[in-house]
Amino acid sequence: MAKFQVNILGCGSATPTARHQPSCQVVDFRDKLFMIDCGEGAQLQFRRMGLKFSRLNHIFISHLHGDHLFGLPGLLSTMGLHEVSGSVTVHIFREGARLMKEWMDFFNRNSPFDIVYDVIEEGERRIVYEDGGLTVETFPLYHRTPCTGFIFREKPKLRHLRGDMVKFHSIPIASLQAIKEGADFVKDDGRVIPNAALTTAADPSVSYAYCSDTMMDSRVAADIRGVDTVYHEATYDDSMAQRARERGHSTAREAATIAREAGARRLIIGHFSKRYNSEEILLREASEVFPDVILANEGLRVDLE
Amino acid sequence: MAKFQVNILGCGSATPTARHQPSCQVVDFRDKLFMIDCGEGAQLQFRRMGLKFSRLNHIFISHLHGDHLFGLPGLLSTMGLHEVSGSVTVHIFREGARLMKEWMDFFNRNSPFDIVYDVIEEGERRIVYEDGGLTVETFPLYHRTPCTGFIFREKPKLRHLRGDMVKFHSIPIASLQAIKEGADFVKDDGRVIPNAALTTAADPSVSYAYCSDTMMDSRVAADIRGVDTVYHEATYDDSMAQRARERGHSTAREAATIAREAGARRLIIGHFSKRYNSEEILLREASEVFPDVILANEGLRVDLE
Repeated sequence: MAKFQVNILGCGSATPTARHQPSCQVVDFRDKLFMIDCGEGAQLQFRRMGLKFSRLNHIFISHLHGDHLFGLPGLLSTMGLHEVSGSVTVHIFREGARLMKEWMDFFNRNSPFDIVYDVIEEGERRIVYEDGGLTVETFPLYHRTPCTGFIFREKPKLRHLRGDMVKFHSIPIASLQAIKEGADFVKDDGRVIPNAALTTAADPSVSYAYCSDTMMDSRVAADIRGVDTVYHEATYDDSMAQRARERGHSTAREAATIAREAGARRLIIGHFSKRYNSEEILLREASEVFPDVILANEGLRVDLE
Repeated sequence: MAKFQVNILGCGSATPTARHQPSCQVVDFRDKLFMIDCGEGAQLQFRRMGLKFSRLNHIFISHLHGDHLFGLPGLLSTMGLHEVSGSVTVHIFREGARLMKEWMDFFNRNSPFDIVYDVIEEGERRIVYEDGGLTVETFPLYHRTPCTGFIFREKPKLRHLRGDMVKFHSIPIASLQAIKEGADFVKDDGRVIPNAALTTAADPSVSYAYCSDTMMDSRVAADIRGVDTVYHEATYDDSMAQRARERGHSTAREAATIAREAGARRLIIGHFSKRYNSEEILLREASEVFPDVILANEGLRVDLE
């Protein structure tokens, strides 16, 4: 199957610790890499996980808190020493684009690639990236500063040809692509063979939603409805629910509630407060609400297919 | 003896690697901490070495290359979460002060301490920090962009009282401080007891010079003449001497040559190119020129007394 994975480079919150790095993930879609958030130390984690700078052309920043982007200057500088060419697009709120550009125009002025800034507006729902196989779209999160989530959606796949029927109707090779895309076949005598008789259903398209940082909000569940795998922040345990709300964060149970409301298949939780020496309590509380929960961890790679 | 140490937080060059972090050191002078350069990841190394944010009030940046300062935004943000108050002074070239201020005014706007920028001018020789026991002064280095070194000098110490003579002359306690500072003692009958009869020499004052990044230049040796311990960059081995010159760096042998010219007692080398899987070759080449060479390494703490 075509590769569609998410790599966890950092799943801590606020400050790097001995246990966790600040937020950073890399989605690998058929060997194209897409970074989501870029906390300090991201470049080192990127290399530790054996990822290739030359395959990274899009970086998505959820919001303008330092633990989600202080790794960007170093990452972009190091990429300039690794024969990255062409362009790298940073999808980021307007003020972040301005501040990054100020620094990069000075510190990275000899960069061998262009840095392009795609400005995301607060509250925007928009496809910010698209290629032949994938879209990435933004949707609002509800943090104490403007924040945006990202949904990675595989485009609809081709239907499977039924070899027996293709042979039976003597369908020429030139017609097969259209049939895989859903077309009926018209025989020389004008008779129409419906697509359903020639193909079986395409494999389902896979999707991944990134939701950090945010308080629990049903609007998030609505925006990501039907997504297969959800990453949702789970900064705190039940006993800290009040603090979660005050800080614009979620508990693990709240993360699981959103995943359930959204009808997701699987939940990854992260953005752990540094107060936890083990995140087992978060896993347990989330699992009481939603069956399939994974604890994020640095170095973890999850197959999304 | 009073504490005077240097902690090596990072001694790599250009990019963080599995072996080395980018440049960062912390001088600990009687529990006041002074950071020199602040590469990405410095805040994490700082905590790994058990250093205390509340004791760090001065940060000295040698030049405006990312591997010497991309750790600053994260460090300053994290310090804001660790009950640091008062002020933190960043000693840095003008354009660096401007760029840091832009970022910190946005990302660190809720900081509980003030960030003060002390602008260093290119080529400046100046005392940039002074307290009762220590001075820190700048002097020019010779890199491919303006660069400054720093000398940490313990102020002259007090002379040691000779207990027998203090007793013999019945010197009152109120006079002892002046005598330790070098004064003679005048007896009630007008007789002068010279200081040399009452004291023995003070312990020597200790000094430490930081020289990174720079090509080999005798003007550096002149500026740091008589310093006890020198940190000098040693990016390359002999075979890379040409490249060292082109990039504004030094070989290990050149670092040792400067230490010898300066009459230093000890040399620490660092800022190693990532091409080395072991720095033994650098140690060997430097040791051919200068007897007491230490290879920097992350976590290393060197007593300067």
